[in-house]
Amino acid sequence: MLHTIKKIGVLTSGGDSPGMNAGIRSVVRTCAFHNIECIGIYRGYEGMIEGDFKSMNARSVKGIINKGGTILKSARSKEFRTVEGRKKAHEQLVKAGINAFVVIGGDGSFTGAMIFSQEYNMPVMGIPGTIDNDIFGTTHTLGYDTALNTVVDVIDKIRDTASSHNRLFFVEVMGRDVGHIALNVGVGAGAEEILIPEEDLGLDRLLESLRRSKQSGKSSSIVVVAEGDKIGKSVFELKDYVEEHMTEYEVRVSVLGHMQRGGSPSCFDRVLASRMGVKAVESLITGKTNCMVGLKNDVMALTPLDQAIKGQSKINLELLRVSDIMSI
Amino acid sequence: MLHTIKKIGVLTSGGDSPGMNAGIRSVVRTCAFHNIECIGIYRGYEGMIEGDFKSMNARSVKGIINKGGTILKSARSKEFRTVEGRKKAHEQLVKAGINAFVVIGGDGSFTGAMIFSQEYNMPVMGIPGTIDNDIFGTTHTLGYDTALNTVVDVIDKIRDTASSHNRLFFVEVMGRDVGHIALNVGVGAGAEEILIPEEDLGLDRLLESLRRSKQSGKSSSIVVVAEGDKIGKSVFELKDYVEEHMTEYEVRVSVLGHMQRGGSPSCFDRVLASRMGVKAVESLITGKTNCMVGLKNDVMALTPLDQAIKGQSKINLELLRVSDIMSI
Amino acid sequence: MLHTIKKIGVLTSGGDSPGMNAGIRSVVRTCAFHNIECIGIYRGYEGMIEGDFKSMNARSVKGIINKGGTILKSARSKEFRTVEGRKKAHEQLVKAGINAFVVIGGDGSFTGAMIFSQEYNMPVMGIPGTIDNDIFGTTHTLGYDTALNTVVDVIDKIRDTASSHNRLFFVEVMGRDVGHIALNVGVGAGAEEILIPEEDLGLDRLLESLRRSKQSGKSSSIVVVAEGDKIGKSVFELKDYVEEHMTEYEVRVSVLGHMQRGGSPSCFDRVLASRMGVKAVESLITGKTNCMVGLKNDVMALTPLDQAIKGQSKINLELLRVSDIMSI
Amino acid sequence: MLHTIKKIGVLTSGGDSPGMNAGIRSVVRTCAFHNIECIGIYRGYEGMIEGDFKSMNARSVKGIINKGGTILKSARSKEFRTVEGRKKAHEQLVKAGINAFVVIGGDGSFTGAMIFSQEYNMPVMGIPGTIDNDIFGTTHTLGYDTALNTVVDVIDKIRDTASSHNRLFFVEVMGRDVGHIALNVGVGAGAEEILIPEEDLGLDRLLESLRRSKQSGKSSSIVVVAEGDKIGKSVFELKDYVEEHMTEYEVRVSVLGHMQRGGSPSCFDRVLASRMGVKAVESLITGKTNCMVGLKNDVMALTPLDQAIKGQSKINLELLRVSDIMSI
Repeated sequence: MLHTIKKIGVLTSGGDSPGMNAGIRSVVRTCAFHNIECIGIYRGYEGMIEGDFKSMNARSVKGIINKGGTILKSARSKEFRTVEGRKKAHEQLVKAGINAFVVIGGDGSFTGAMIFSQEYNMPVMGIPGTIDNDIFGTTHTLGYDTALNTVVDVIDKIRDTASSHNRLFFVEVMGRDVGHIALNVGVGAGAEEILIPEEDLGLDRLLESLRRSKQSGKSSSIVVVAEGDKIGKSVFELKDYVEEHMTEYEVRVSVLGHMQRGGSPSCFDRVLASRMGVKAVESLITGKTNCMVGLKNDVMALTPLDQAIKGQSKINLELLRVSDIMSI
Repeated sequence: MLHTIKKIGVLTSGGDSPGMNAGIRSVVRTCAFHNIECIGIYRGYEGMIEGDFKSMNARSVKGIINKGGTILKSARSKEFRTVEGRKKAHEQLVKAGINAFVVIGGDGSFTGAMIFSQEYNMPVMGIPGTIDNDIFGTTHTLGYDTALNTVVDVIDKIRDTASSHNRLFFVEVMGRDVGHIALNVGVGAGAEEILIPEEDLGLDRLLESLRRSKQSGKSSSIVVVAEGDKIGKSVFELKDYVEEHMTEYEVRVSVLGHMQRGGSPSCFDRVLASRMGVKAVESLITGKTNCMVGLKNDVMALTPLDQAIKGQSKINLELLRVSDIMSI
Repeated sequence: MLHTIKKIGVLTSGGDSPGMNAGIRSVVRTCAFHNIECIGIYRGYEGMIEGDFKSMNARSVKGIINKGGTILKSARSKEFRTVEGRKKAHEQLVKAGINAFVVIGGDGSFTGAMIFSQEYNMPVMGIPGTIDNDIFGTTHTLGYDTALNTVVDVIDKIRDTASSHNRLFFVEVMGRDVGHIALNVGVGAGAEEILIPEEDLGLDRLLESLRRSKQSGKSSSIVVVAEGDKIGKSVFELKDYVEEHMTEYEVRVSVLGHMQRGGSPSCFDRVLASRMGVKAVESLITGKTNCMVGLKNDVMALTPLDQAIKGQSKINLELLRVSDIMSI
Repeated sequence: MLHTIKKIGVLTSGGDSPGMNAGIRSVVRTCAFHNIECIGIYRGYEGMIEGDFKSMNARSVKGIINKGGTILKSARSKEFRTVEGRKKAHEQLVKAGINAFVVIGGDGSFTGAMIFSQEYNMPVMGIPGTIDNDIFGTTHTLGYDTALNTVVDVIDKIRDTASSHNRLFFVEVMGRDVGHIALNVGVGAGAEEILIPEEDLGLDRLLESLRRSKQSGKSSSIVVVAEGDKIGKSVFELKDYVEEHMTEYEVRVSVLGHMQRGGSPSCFDRVLASRMGVKAVESLITGKTNCMVGLKNDVMALTPLDQAIKGQSKINLELLRVSDIMSI
């Protein structure tokens, strides 16, 4: 049965990412364009359970397209994982007259939406928002492009010091399960080696690579390490290991941390967010549900939420080869 | 007959763009990787004619991946358009032992390469380098993504002033023939209206749109205008026209100009340049010629130079609609 | 007679500049700290006349320290220059219970404040906010340091193109009456020549300097021109003149315009704004009036408004010499 | 006896900082201006001992004014602390005909220069280059202003995440002995609390301050911690302590590390470096020695090296008060 969409809720959930605000703006304005009421749901599913809602019109989202973070705030909700939690959330939505919602977030947020939607037969649409780009069904998640630029900019700064002092730096970047960020910033910042969850380089080959790099005349080196790299050592352990086995370099460590999530979104992320918001709302209007909006071959496309959750976002293996050639 | 590639020349030609240096670096290092000599050709075809060459190895391109402009410098050469000019260039290449080259540039540079290649049966490969993104056969040219971020960043600054003073700004951005930049920064910077070469909005509809914008409660407005917009008026004439017909706004003009071409390339442009350089050199090695390396559906692909030159790079019409909805 | 300050108004007036928001924040929070009510006056003196006021507490100014522009908006008011206008303004202030105000702006805004204060015996305090740094009694105005970084960043980008193409660029920067911006960005961006209102280089010496620059082996040149430079020619006329008299260079022009006013304030401007706001409010509390808060030898100091208005902000002549030496 | 300065060496020593290249450029060009030979000494005193020298002219320093790091590279030399080391260094200088040098660095580098100068009666001049601003005799060291902007920019990004998630962040910034960076970025980024080496806030008052901050309606908080803060706990220990004693916040930690040293220098640092280089070389020419060039009340001034080393760079206590008021 086709729902008539009268009032759409929008929330951000999970870790924040640049472009979430642009996505909220797009959902709100597309609703306004189609004369549908739009309600902002604060603090993710937590706020849904508590009924922390606010009506939004086209002017409510003024001046936020270029802001990092999320004006709706975000949270991770344990309660929403329970039957009771979702029941409360449903009551709040019903009370507010919301009969469909758009959630901007990652895997966990989509799982919640899917279960909720099935339990209460409510149309939902997901927009992938996370800097990790670890979601199946889209080549780019919101915030990923911005994060790449943020990280490359920071590594450029570290490179200034590295090459002034002939040092080796291990730089840890985000990416617990997939190496998208590490791989791309590794190539983009001209790293000598890139350690990612998808490939176990091994300590021996790392040492070998660093020695070859030194012999080829390089005075400094940057190794980019994804949080979840396969070697299974922390950047601090890597430092110790390399210092023990190589005397050619002074070794330093830098853990970039949370700054990677913030900042004004890149043009790409703002445009992507604007497109995704339109697609999400118009998909709900035309009766679609339980899907995630994504970018495939530069076109907006829907992927069923269960596929988006189960599927695996794969790194571009071509880049590993490019990185090897570039670090000659 | 398959040429054995022994020595590859690399040049940048036409207007410079961010990512050209990353492209040079990639060509040079891919040559080094495959034990092929690589020669830098200075000042585009002008330097080819004059034999302004320099041997390059993996270390020659150190520390340039993040630099704007082109270390090989660039130029537009009238002489290369003549039979005599190309003859001289060929003699210089033969003298230096160069038997293939990669040219990083735009349409004009590719036309020169194609004619030269046919006259002298020399393998050539093109890498699209221009901020305008006006080349068929690739979704992205080198420098385009960076320019989008540069322009959006500047318009954000102008927006600060516009909204502090309730003003209307006409901002002219590059794009003589295609509206890629205008369209994307227009959406990305939240412009109220976007004027591009592909669409004639007309002065009446512009006024109407600005009036509606004012009535909807917006206190300031940004109109992004591509150099080659269809209305056929300069931004200064647009200002005069609007001031004559509307008293609601103080109008200001900003012509962004050459700054759009400069700056450190974005991560995307650095990675793209690295991929394109590898693909260009390895394509030459495997006997390909007279093609341009491009990005299609996120994969490296070759397009024959004549198609790249004749074909038209089309804007994404979906974005026009997104822009309309967003500026509600 | 010493007024007891109970309710302080704060407004921004004239051209906006980065740091104004940080200044507003500081005024508001210093009032809160001293349990004084604070009222935001919108759109400068225009809003004062119309009674466009809003009560502000410590939380009202959350998240604005890093934002360009001014949340109180700004305007230039003709009406406030009239006796009637100021009468209306006074009535509005009295009605709202405001018995002192802080105005963030430039010369014109201070003149208005001074006259008003004398007519109505109301304590006023000025905070110098303008990117031009053209105010006597402070070594730095709010926004000046940020503008220097913005402009230097843009000229760096232009330099990428200039040196890729062996070009000469005339870059026009703000500064109608004083050359602070031109002089500092000229030195900071390594310009070959700097044209400012304070010194008439003359066209002959400009040509001579450019020729010498070319002969010394420089392939590209940047000339920074203040809006109000003494030669009295526009950058476009300068371009024509040089092209007529020199064939060594291709000449290009870039007028930076309004973008110079926007953007997130530098750390220096944020700290300066915070200090100035505290000083302004606490000066009012201790019975001072009719003064401007300024930075002198790195310490907060008051200057009577009439001196601030009449006095002349002088450029550092040492920098002219440094520029000459650097452009050898 | 007055030395006739014929050949000046220039080196960078200790940790690198933005503006060092601009300083090198200025020393080199001022030498060229006065027809004095200039020799670049690589890798600090290490390279002096090894005779790692290179002749430099005005063109050698082209295009470096906006680059972070140091093209002469830097190092810390144990050998130069020995009589034998300095003897070798002297022999190298004599051999190369260098009869004076300018060293850009910090306290340690100045100590070496002073001892050397006394032992061998060689004129030396220091330029303060360090981001920590911990040198007596100048209000600003090279790189300090740039580092403030870099750090504030990063904390702005962290704030995006902090306020999206209602979190408390401890951000560790550089400053082992003095709190200049922490104090200024704390005010500039709107930190709720600032922990510096000069003041022991104590854990109780920290908790109290955070509680008050929460009660006043703030949803997120940033505490800036200098490396050498007086409480004597690492940021990780602070996190644990606060999490144990407060349940209101999720706490996160970010250690900014080496990125603080890199990046393109701010306009201020470029201008300062240009001024200091001129002053250093011209002071040597006029017979001055054993001094450091500094900025005092916006004017170039010399301070004897022994005073520069022994003296203490003091923080501006006014800022502590400003910070308290701002975090109301």
